[in-house]
Formats: sequence, C-alpha cells, structure tokens
Amino acid sequence: MTKKFFGFSASLWVTTKRIETLADGIFAIAMTLLVLSIGVPQIAEPVSSAALQQSLIDLIPKFFSYALSFVLLAVFWRINHQQFYVIKRADTTLLWINILWLLFVALVPFSTSLIGEYGEYQITEVFFHLNLLAIGLFCYLNWHYATESNFVDKSLDSDAKTSIKRGNLVLPITSLLAIAISFISPSWSSMAYLFIPFIKKI
Amino acid sequence: MTKKFFGFSASLWVTTKRIETLADGIFAIAMTLLVLSIGVPQIAEPVSSAALQQSLIDLIPKFFSYALSFVLLAVFWRINHQQFYVIKRADTTLLWINILWLLFVALVPFSTSLIGEYGEYQITEVFFHLNLLAIGLFCYLNWHYATESNFVDKSLDSDAKTSIKRGNLVLPITSLLAIAISFISPSWSSMAYLFIPFIKKI
Amino acid sequence: MTKKFFGFSASLWVTTKRIETLADGIFAIAMTLLVLSIGVPQIAEPVSSAALQQSLIDLIPKFFSYALSFVLLAVFWRINHQQFYVIKRADTTLLWINILWLLFVALVPFSTSLIGEYGEYQITEVFFHLNLLAIGLFCYLNWHYATESNFVDKSLDSDAKTSIKRGNLVLPITSLLAIAISFISPSWSSMAYLFIPFIKKI
Amino acid sequence: MTKKFFGFSASLWVTTKRIETLADGIFAIAMTLLVLSIGVPQIAEPVSSAALQQSLIDLIPKFFSYALSFVLLAVFWRINHQQFYVIKRADTTLLWINILWLLFVALVPFSTSLIGEYGEYQITEVFFHLNLLAIGLFCYLNWHYATESNFVDKSLDSDAKTSIKRGNLVLPITSLLAIAISFISPSWSSMAYLFIPFIKKI
Repeated sequence: MTKKFFGFSASLWVTTKRIETLADGIFAIAMTLLVLSIGVPQIAEPVSSAALQQSLIDLIPKFFSYALSFVLLAVFWRINHQQFYVIKRADTTLLWINILWLLFVALVPFSTSLIGEYGEYQITEVFFHLNLLAIGLFCYLNWHYATESNFVDKSLDSDAKTSIKRGNLVLPITSLLAIAISFISPSWSSMAYLFIPFIKKI
Repeated sequence: MTKKFFGFSASLWVTTKRIETLADGIFAIAMTLLVLSIGVPQIAEPVSSAALQQSLIDLIPKFFSYALSFVLLAVFWRINHQQFYVIKRADTTLLWINILWLLFVALVPFSTSLIGEYGEYQITEVFFHLNLLAIGLFCYLNWHYATESNFVDKSLDSDAKTSIKRGNLVLPITSLLAIAISFISPSWSSMAYLFIPFIKKI
Repeated sequence: MTKKFFGFSASLWVTTKRIETLADGIFAIAMTLLVLSIGVPQIAEPVSSAALQQSLIDLIPKFFSYALSFVLLAVFWRINHQQFYVIKRADTTLLWINILWLLFVALVPFSTSLIGEYGEYQITEVFFHLNLLAIGLFCYLNWHYATESNFVDKSLDSDAKTSIKRGNLVLPITSLLAIAISFISPSWSSMAYLFIPFIKKI
Repeated sequence: MTKKFFGFSASLWVTTKRIETLADGIFAIAMTLLVLSIGVPQIAEPVSSAALQQSLIDLIPKFFSYALSFVLLAVFWRINHQQFYVIKRADTTLLWINILWLLFVALVPFSTSLIGEYGEYQITEVFFHLNLLAIGLFCYLNWHYATESNFVDKSLDSDAKTSIKRGNLVLPITSLLAIAISFISPSWSSMAYLFIPFIKKI
C-alpha cells in the first residue's frame, strides 16, 4: 500500500469504526460457534435413559470449557471496546494488529473443542493457553501501539494510560500461570482463569 | 475492574447500544445455526424414493424443534428489545447479566439438537426446558436489576414496571410447566410453549 | 401481548429498523452457511490425483445448488430491502410475518444440502421448491399486510403498490412452476429459477 | 426489475451502505467459519500424549491454510472498504457484481478445507487459486464499473483512479502466479501470496 493511495493518505480511511464492526461480527460468531464444540452424544442402539444420562454427565468438561471460552471471549470483547472507547484514530499497522488478533480470536472454537475432547492431556491444554496468550499479547500490543502513536483521546492522562497498560497484562500473565499449572495437572490448569478477578485486585 | 478505570467511571462506556449489538449478533447466529440440528439424512445405498420419503417423515420431530426454538429465540430477542427500549443506562453488572444470558442463548442450538435426536427421553427434554428456564430467569433478572438501579426511562410509571416484571415471568413459568409435563410425557412437554399466548392473557 | 404494554402502545417500539437488522444478520449467515452443503470429499486411501479430480467433478451439482441458493437468497434480501425502503411503520403482526419468513430463510441451507445430496429424486426437489414457495409467500404477505395497514410511504401511488404486488408474485409462481417440472424431471426442475428474469418481463 | 419500480428509479434505493452491510456480515462469518476447516483430530483409542502431539503436528498445513485464507479475506475486505470509501452511488449492476463477488468469498471456507485436506495435489491447489482469482477479478470489475459509471467521488483525480485500478490487479496476478507454481510444486504454490507486499512495490 503506497502512502498516497487515493491522492491522500491511505491510512485516512482506516477508521476505528470499521475495525470495531469487523471485531463485533467475529466475536459474536466465534462465541456462538463455541456451541459446536459440545457435540450431541451419539449413543449406540439400544438407547436407554441411563445411557443418555451418563453421556450428558460425560459432557460436563465440554460444558465447562464452553462456558469458560464464552466468558473469556466476552472479557476480551469488553477490553477491546474499552480500548477503542479512547482510541480515536487508526492506521494500517493498527488495522493489522487487530486482524492478527482476530485470527487468534476466531481460532478459539477450535482450541475449545480440543480441550473439551482431550482436556486431560497437557499438550491440548498448553495449546489452548497459548491461543489465549496470543490474544492477550495482541490486545496489549494494540494499546501499546495506539498510545505510542498518539491515537488515544488527549484528555486521557498518562496515569490512566499506564493503569490500562498494566490491566492488559492480567490476561497474558494468567495464561502463563495456566501453562505452568498444566505441568502439574493439565485438567486443572484452566482454573487459573477463575483467579482473574483476584489478580486484578493486586 | 476498578471503579476508576480511565480516570473516570469504568461503567461510563458500558453503553446499552453495545450490549444490543452483541445480542443482535448472537441471536441472529444462534437462530440460523439451529438449522444444523436438522442433519441431512444419510441413507444407505441403494437410495430409493420411498426411503428418502420415509427419512424426511422421520425428520418431522426435528423440524418441530427447529421451528419451536426459532420462534422462542425470536420471542426472547423481542423481549430484550422491549426492555432496552426503556433501559437508558448500563453498568458492569448489567453487562455481565446480559453476557451470561447470551451464554444460555448460544446454547440453544445444542439443546435443540438434543431434543431433535432424543426427544422421547425425559432427561433431554428437561435439559432443553432448563436451558430456556435459565434464559427466562436472566431476562427477568435483567429487568429487575435495571429497574432497581434506576436505569430505566423516568417517564415509565411503576404500574408499567410491575406489568413488565410480571410479563417476564411468563416464560420461566412455562418452562417449569414443561418440566412438570415431562414427568408424564417427555415428547409432549414442549407443547407447553404453545400455551404462552393464553398464559399471557391471564 | 397486551396493547398497552409500556403504558403506551406495545407496537410503538416495533421499528422497521430492528426487523431489518435481524433480517440482515440471518441472511448473511444463511448465505455463508450454504457453503457447508458442499462437503469436502472424503476419498478412500490411497488418494490419487485422478480420484480427487473425479470427486470434484461429482461435486458439480452441489456447486450449482450452492450458487442457485446464494443468488435466490440475495434476490429475496433485495426484495425485502425494496419493501422496507417504503414501509415506514410496523406492528406486532408485521414483526411476526417477518420472523416466520426468516424461519424459512434460515431453513434454506438444509434444503440446499438436501438437493445437493439427493437432487435426482423428486421428493427432495419438491421440498426445496416448497421452502422457496414459503419464502415467496411470506414476502408477498409482508407487502400485502403493510399496504393494507397503511404502513407504506404516502407518496407511493396505488399503481406502484399494485406493480410491486405483482412483482412479488414472480418468485412464488416460479416455485410452483419448478414443482410442476419436477414431475417430469426432478434434476432439471431448479432450472425454472433461471427463467425469473424473463418471467419478470411479462 | 423495471426501471420505474417505485414510480421512481429502481436503482435509487441501492445504497452503497446496504452492500457494505451485507459484505461486512459475509466476510466476518466466512473468516470465522474458516476455523471449521481445522477439524479436531479423531485419535483411535488408546489415546496417548505422543499420538496427540503427532496429530497436532500433522495439523500444521491446516493451520497454515487457515491463517493464509484469514489474512487474504482480510485483505479483500480492506480493498472493498477502500473502494466504497470513494464509491458514492450504486445501481443494480454494481449490486450484482458485489453479490457474485460475495458468492466466491463465501466459498473460501470450502476451498481452504480442500487444500488443508489434500494440499499436496495440484488440482485442489488450482481450485483454491481459481477461487481467489474469481474474488480478485470481481473486485477489479467492481472498481472498473464504478469508475466507468461515474459513481466515485468527483474529487478523485484520474491518476488516483488508474493507480487503484493497477493495485486491484495485484491479487489476480498473484493467483495466476500461484497456479503456475502449482505445476512445479502444488504444496508450495500458496507461498505466492506471501510475495504480495513485494509485488505491490513494483
């Protein structure tokens, strides 16, 4: 992309509104597609009430990972809106940071299926945590780049900027913590995300 | 989330418009994903016209649960819009009520597939009705919290508020009724929702 | 729904904009979900280049039904926007006409998969044509009800209204024609829709 | 469609905003549906940590084609927005160019699954490149028709128009290049798209 694309700066048209529209769409779809990670149990004939009950109980880990991913995506959707509430301009680099960020957001239904199916193995849990780590890091990078490029609302003081920057580290740190826990117990590593409200207090 | 997130109240940016956008997206997707609960029949070779006809007739319970869930989701979408037509402000708590509400909305394609596949068993029907009960209760909670927090339009008198509150109980009560019926006949329990227009009259 | 829901008419909040938002969402999703009707061929090992080529050639009827349904849904999306370009108000009945209309729109990915898989049988083709007939009839009903209820722009003269009404009959008539053709040749019945541009001329 | 559809020109209501809304929806969904092309590996019992690790390594070509298609769709979404940033009016022909363009956009999840599954065969790679070629050509056609019909912003000089026209040829040319490479090595042909930033410089 040349700098002078339309006879004026190519970046001019990269409005934050456009990025938000794409993000809103991808988040809504990814959050709803998560449900496909809970497949309807296929029970061998003859189907019995007891077999159905057991198969629904067996789905509990899948319900848990569905709910966890749904809530975590909602948290990231919220953080993104908080950021763009004060980010007033954008350029091509910021657009690409967001596109790569969304690439990892749209991957969440896959990694959720993976831990729903094979949650007792460390490798699948690490995959899930690395996926969330990537989302967290791009989220951090988005804010870092926006503040460095003076794209944020001027009325925002530097204390607030630093406070948000620190806040954006909560989720990547939690993902690293979850990876550490996975070495001890893969199945329990996702519980790390339940401590987010407490980590935030510190 | 600290109260002073951006140097001003963190809740400030939680606009009702944002919540509605996410809700609109998730509803449209969940309603369309319902169609995946009606799988194309896989007929063993040799395929015959009679076998195809029979397999389409066998799909009738799936068509019924597709239509039922589609219409029920439309009803909830409608109620949500009615509520946000008069809810003028929001805070973090209201946002989370809505996110958890949407978590159960996005689960509907799964529970619809479940009753489409195993509708003659009580446990699957109860699962479906509990899913709708959860949606109904969060819907009620949303209105309850919004009125208690004075987020609603001031021109709305307390009679109207109470009338809406009562109206929001229609769907949870119907779900409870459906659960009760499932003890007598699982397959017929979903019919309870067809009485909604009559329950509303009372 | 009581007439006096919020202390003012319940219909007041049924804005045409809301209906259009839901319709836009469901159309975009249904049109994109159509792609799932073309499954990636599963070739028995050993996979050969010739086997892959053959399996792609075998997919041609599925590509055709994908393209046909995509274009037909685009046509209905277009007609709906034409209608709401002049429909200025709405009530609960109009909302429900649109919800039932969308129920059949969201069913199209299923009936497209059905004819993609079993297109040489009359029963699947008739199912597909009945699905489109239902969409066409609700589309007609939408315009009929809106004009009868005086919801349309007053600057629209009765000649224009009648002309649109007649235009809305083109698609249902084509579906009936396709059903008639299916008695002679199921596989060719979908070709009826290719004559729409010519039927419109008459 | 008669020219005088509503008593005024039928094209009048074809706003560029409508087209953009449909395009935004279909792009967001197609980009998120790509994730379904990476299926969760089905490992034969007994599942072992080593088998899981191997199956994730085997998925690397699928991750690559997921990321490639996601980024390419983002590029086309971006180009479309750049075009409609200056396209101020539309007519029925422009609408249909965009609908056919979206038909090929919505097909990308299928062709991505195809190369993810059978990427070492030339025929699947050629299918994928032809899909992208079609998207690129409709994108070019959109701009060509819009400028020929004087739908673009009058402040845009003819130098800028020609520059954009040339820019729109970058992607079709890359697809043709990829098809050429597929004759030498199917698996490496997709790498052609990685040269786009360099081709743009020329």
